[in-house]
Amino acid sequence: MSFFRPEIEAIGGYTPGEQPQDGSFIKLNTNENPYLPSPAVAEAIQWTIVRLPKYPHTFGDPFRQMAAEHWGVEPEWILCGNGSDDILTIVTRTLVGAGELLRLPYPSYILYRTLAQLQGANFEEVHFNADWTLPEAFFSPLPLGEGPGVRASRLKLVFLANPNSPSGTVVPPEKILEIAKRLPCPLLVDEAYADFAETNCMSLVKQCEKIMVSRSFSKSYALAGLRFGYLVAQPQLIEQFTKMKDSYNCDALSVAAATAALGDREWLAANRAKILATRGRLVAEMRKLGFVTVDSQANFVWNVRTDRPIRPFYEELKRRRILVRYMDYPGWGDGLRISVGTDEEIDHCLEELRKIV
Amino acid sequence: MSFFRPEIEAIGGYTPGEQPQDGSFIKLNTNENPYLPSPAVAEAIQWTIVRLPKYPHTFGDPFRQMAAEHWGVEPEWILCGNGSDDILTIVTRTLVGAGELLRLPYPSYILYRTLAQLQGANFEEVHFNADWTLPEAFFSPLPLGEGPGVRASRLKLVFLANPNSPSGTVVPPEKILEIAKRLPCPLLVDEAYADFAETNCMSLVKQCEKIMVSRSFSKSYALAGLRFGYLVAQPQLIEQFTKMKDSYNCDALSVAAATAALGDREWLAANRAKILATRGRLVAEMRKLGFVTVDSQANFVWNVRTDRPIRPFYEELKRRRILVRYMDYPGWGDGLRISVGTDEEIDHCLEELRKIV
Repeated sequence: MSFFRPEIEAIGGYTPGEQPQDGSFIKLNTNENPYLPSPAVAEAIQWTIVRLPKYPHTFGDPFRQMAAEHWGVEPEWILCGNGSDDILTIVTRTLVGAGELLRLPYPSYILYRTLAQLQGANFEEVHFNADWTLPEAFFSPLPLGEGPGVRASRLKLVFLANPNSPSGTVVPPEKILEIAKRLPCPLLVDEAYADFAETNCMSLVKQCEKIMVSRSFSKSYALAGLRFGYLVAQPQLIEQFTKMKDSYNCDALSVAAATAALGDREWLAANRAKILATRGRLVAEMRKLGFVTVDSQANFVWNVRTDRPIRPFYEELKRRRILVRYMDYPGWGDGLRISVGTDEEIDHCLEELRKIV
Repeated sequence: MSFFRPEIEAIGGYTPGEQPQDGSFIKLNTNENPYLPSPAVAEAIQWTIVRLPKYPHTFGDPFRQMAAEHWGVEPEWILCGNGSDDILTIVTRTLVGAGELLRLPYPSYILYRTLAQLQGANFEEVHFNADWTLPEAFFSPLPLGEGPGVRASRLKLVFLANPNSPSGTVVPPEKILEIAKRLPCPLLVDEAYADFAETNCMSLVKQCEKIMVSRSFSKSYALAGLRFGYLVAQPQLIEQFTKMKDSYNCDALSVAAATAALGDREWLAANRAKILATRGRLVAEMRKLGFVTVDSQANFVWNVRTDRPIRPFYEELKRRRILVRYMDYPGWGDGLRISVGTDEEIDHCLEELRKIV
């Protein structure tokens, strides 16, 4: 006899991404920032160690205050999370019950699908157009009726990574407002990579109750190891989400560190400028090497080939101690997602690719 | 129209415990450790700051390794959590579906009930006997049939805080083994306070697949602000729980800090000795003041009065800048839960109580 919920047992075991710990690889596979975070982060952590015997703020108050000022809203518009994955989990659990429906684009962040499965909910994937724009189906207020049980279930939540992964492309804010207006449910715009983009949807949150925006400190703030993210949404939504979160979901060190990081705008601007310069060079060079490379607004670039299989490039690079991400999306195709590292790392990667080509 | 799951909207908003941040209160209300953590913790945090740009270990490997050695099991028996609340959430979500049943003792940790509600599950509370032993009903393999819908639903999980809060009392391990053998489902023994007790259930995990033990770093390791806890269970159970957890649920700083804390056994022994000495004195003095005080195996003591209302004691102490926890359990009664602080804090509290009595 099994003790577990059948829908959980049916899910395949989790396969973590490649995270070699020996430091001998150039890691361009998980979109980490190649630079150290703002020096203000280390300082904030030092100061907070003596406060560890006490419980942290329930709502991450110092961060909430600073993020509210940053975006021109009240603190009640901010929900802090243990990484933006925690935010996505909280939102899914609060909105989507067993048998209900979640919509997501394809290909995109794999976690969205898992979150639906863990809830015992259904999901419908809408394929991007070949040019990474969204088809009319994504705007539909009704379930699309793909698969059994979908038509009967109500659409309760829509996820949209913007910029998207693996493409690095952006759906313009005016399109997103149009989608949200037509949907019967909230739309979570996952802006994990938005600091590297030209636009974002933060100002839409005030205009439309259905638009929620999540942010991460893992990419643009170089703090993937810290686990901190947040949601901006109207306060009547945040109020419900706070019931779902763990009482102390964010530890004292991460709240202090994220507050310090958000406060150092000069660091962010300088880091962004470096990443964007390297990204531009990477895109140009990949194209010279015969890859079809998508214009990116994130800290990674998506590359396919039309002349030969792409998987061997991943394998050859790995043999040479360079890790990039090989991704194969059934029904869509495969490609290499390469994170924007330092200039030295990218030069080294390009040099090896030249030999392989 | 509401966007939210009706069972979530029906739950009252979360009321955080009193956590004054101004430092002017003596805090004896949330069972925090009054001493600073092991110096090894600060050192481990310092060393880890430079690793923050990279994602942490998916399973908290360094901690898993050390905890496995500590308890004489393999690392696959350990699940790391963002505080033991994260562990309790993961276990509940993996085992208990909507409409199914969770059993818990009463009075005990309020969160267990909330976890059932958030899942849309039912719960049945079994009242402790007056002497804080468990009645026969808690051992029953069948649902007790209290309330509509309960009889039809299957019992999927049982929680037992041991030592219990607010009583500080312990159910002996042999009784717990007897309960587990009769139950049709896993039993989570929440040992958040077990480092202050004379016994624990860790050795039972190997004997019985249904027994799982959770631990916290918030109390005995003086790291409430860090958010770190873990579960020890047989590997076939841990494997299912890992599907439910966030991919990176524990940040790099907390994994490093908890590993260092667990490694410093001398610090733990010395801290425990101090807390137990102060606890003994607190119990004796409370009894002299006319309180009925339960013998405690935790870092707090539970006090009631038979001669007059107890709430005014809480209010008077608060007026004098001493926070203790007033708890009122409908159908059971009320009392004061006083955390074991430093000798100075407890002396000051006792002095004020003498004036109030």
